[in-house]
Amino acid sequence: MDVEIVAIGNELLLGETVDTNSAYAARRLAKIGARVSRVTIVGDDRERMRKALAEARERSRWVITTGGLGPTQDDVTRQVVAELFDAPLEIDADVLADVEERFRRFGYAKMPESNLSQAEVPRGARVIPNRHGTAPGLVVEGGGSTFFVLPGVPAEMRALLEEGVLPALVAASGDAVPVVRSRVVHTAGIGESALAERLQDALADTSPIEVAFLPDLGMVDVRLTLAGYSRVEADRRLDVLAGEIIRRSTPWFYGIDDETLPQAIGGSLVERGWKVAVAESMTSGELGAELTSPAGSSAWFVGGIMAYANEAKEALLGVPRETLAHHGAVSEETCRAMLAGARKALRAEVACAVTGIAGPAGGSEEKPVGLVWIGVETPAGAQVRKLDLPGGRKEVRRRATAATLALLWRQLRPAESER
Amino acid sequence: MDVEIVAIGNELLLGETVDTNSAYAARRLAKIGARVSRVTIVGDDRERMRKALAEARERSRWVITTGGLGPTQDDVTRQVVAELFDAPLEIDADVLADVEERFRRFGYAKMPESNLSQAEVPRGARVIPNRHGTAPGLVVEGGGSTFFVLPGVPAEMRALLEEGVLPALVAASGDAVPVVRSRVVHTAGIGESALAERLQDALADTSPIEVAFLPDLGMVDVRLTLAGYSRVEADRRLDVLAGEIIRRSTPWFYGIDDETLPQAIGGSLVERGWKVAVAESMTSGELGAELTSPAGSSAWFVGGIMAYANEAKEALLGVPRETLAHHGAVSEETCRAMLAGARKALRAEVACAVTGIAGPAGGSEEKPVGLVWIGVETPAGAQVRKLDLPGGRKEVRRRATAATLALLWRQLRPAESER
Repeated sequence: MDVEIVAIGNELLLGETVDTNSAYAARRLAKIGARVSRVTIVGDDRERMRKALAEARERSRWVITTGGLGPTQDDVTRQVVAELFDAPLEIDADVLADVEERFRRFGYAKMPESNLSQAEVPRGARVIPNRHGTAPGLVVEGGGSTFFVLPGVPAEMRALLEEGVLPALVAASGDAVPVVRSRVVHTAGIGESALAERLQDALADTSPIEVAFLPDLGMVDVRLTLAGYSRVEADRRLDVLAGEIIRRSTPWFYGIDDETLPQAIGGSLVERGWKVAVAESMTSGELGAELTSPAGSSAWFVGGIMAYANEAKEALLGVPRETLAHHGAVSEETCRAMLAGARKALRAEVACAVTGIAGPAGGSEEKPVGLVWIGVETPAGAQVRKLDLPGGRKEVRRRATAATLALLWRQLRPAESER
Repeated sequence: MDVEIVAIGNELLLGETVDTNSAYAARRLAKIGARVSRVTIVGDDRERMRKALAEARERSRWVITTGGLGPTQDDVTRQVVAELFDAPLEIDADVLADVEERFRRFGYAKMPESNLSQAEVPRGARVIPNRHGTAPGLVVEGGGSTFFVLPGVPAEMRALLEEGVLPALVAASGDAVPVVRSRVVHTAGIGESALAERLQDALADTSPIEVAFLPDLGMVDVRLTLAGYSRVEADRRLDVLAGEIIRRSTPWFYGIDDETLPQAIGGSLVERGWKVAVAESMTSGELGAELTSPAGSSAWFVGGIMAYANEAKEALLGVPRETLAHHGAVSEETCRAMLAGARKALRAEVACAVTGIAGPAGGSEEKPVGLVWIGVETPAGAQVRKLDLPGGRKEVRRRATAATLALLWRQLRPAESER
């Protein structure tokens, strides 16, 4: 079951907004066994939009459009779709009542004139009510194609996808239809080549399963995809191969599919009855935010200290003034003192620390931008690593955060790892 | 000057990777006055890729492709482009030497066989050397079109775009060519409708400048775009309108184009000689990470405390045990105590605090998921706000962070705001 997506908006073509809607929709569609065959991004230009939508209708049974349903003049998706399907726009009384009601609730005496267009519906189209915004979704059918016309605001798009699009596709697909299924095996702390070597025998002939390595930020994912089988048979085959990959990639393996490294870390901490605290200089909260991204992280995350200024390192983490003066804030010694200070101040069994130079300023010949010390301390002792990270400020911070999570993961699984 | 982008990779169509490359390229292209006319995402399927590339060549003088240049079997962009331009692949001796050298530097005795394909170049194509990875970029011309074939790894794509694509486009464009220019005016803390009302008169007739409102997370951007004039004339016209919008949107206006809210906050703090500290419960570092995203933030950001557990709120922020017991961790009283505690512990003139329930668990009838208290304290006093945020865990945290930054911004500009 192939679905095509057309994302609409000048802001996407200008690069001011990254189109995250399409990736989100693709992930949700994959869950019901549907596959995105193509994504097209076009601007708010009527003629170009019309061409892209006509091409999509030509190619695909199912098309999702996002964006261009707002109240302003540059929002013309509704009109272009109506013309494409030769269905004149008409005011829908129910939608109009909804939009007006929404404005009343927000304290407006009356709805602005410009919002009237949001109550227009192509004749014969079905409305997907929007409880999160003023623009409803539309389902327009004709010429062997079905268009799901959704707003571009991510929260609204996601809600209407769940409520109006996925149920319709599931209903249309039936059970016997061959589906596309995939599994992603996640690893942290091992390079792509080294992982590929370990998996070589298992991946010698995986046909009809497609295998792809996806490296990012020092983590490597292995994606398995299988098309053309029933859901049950596809899952059975994928599970066998995934199991073999997991066996060979332990202790670097940390999860499959939606499982994240912070979740795996949390699970391992709970098993041991430990809690973790963080001490962050350069990353200033990124590590704490990452660690607490999973639901339920309060069971194993105590808190942390962003010790950006040296005074904060002294006052809150007890880093000795002499250590800072003698070795500097970016040094193995400071990193170790931050670890000890975080464990003590937050009464945690485990601590992580990051101190480094993200740039663009602040580097020197001896300590260039990208120099980072990360560390993890558990009751079994402290491990610190010196990193020399490429990229700009943002990338250095992201890579340091990811490397610290990977180091923490390895320290929580010492029994299985090669020491 | 229109440029079309084709992004290649199954991981993009499966939604496992968000295509950030296209938005990045679009922003860089906009800087030289070029405009992306369309983005297409296709998978690693040969036939579908061939179709998409052929269509792009038909439509566009300039095409950038990203992805599919890796060493594995699913990387077929090189072959598909070679076939499309009828240019057989040949081993390029220089590229081969580069790739082999790269493997030697990383400690390999010899290059893996699979990497040989990365040294293949379509006959007649120009090579853009890649110092960040093994796959070089390619410039392939024919049939009135030029294809820039780039790797998909973001760091490599960005480097080759700068080194091989932008200079070629600038050289081809000449000076007299009309360009597309834009300005984005950023505001925080005012809704789209209220802002539109304030700007109404200024935006009554802006033609030929296009105006669009882009709301996100409680912030509203106003984008002005002008096509068809010389760079100097376009900039002059845009500056006049942008100036008028800035005048009318003060004190909510905080910057234009690449300027960010944390930068504006930093500038305002430096002006006053103040420093800021944060106390975060629910967001656990997101606010600190956001505030320190600009270079040079150490001039005005001291540090912060992630007080996730109640014990951390007591020990590190001095929130009285009775306050937590009586009012709960998510309450106005705790938020105010966190503000006072952060100012004291970090010796900062200004503090921000966030405490709330991000969910999915932890909510109650009285205090549902999405309930958040945010606060800002300056020498002029404390301001706290109760928020009722929609969305899942991640969205609640992001919105709370954004709302706190907006509140901080408003507290730093009290003289100009309506009080």
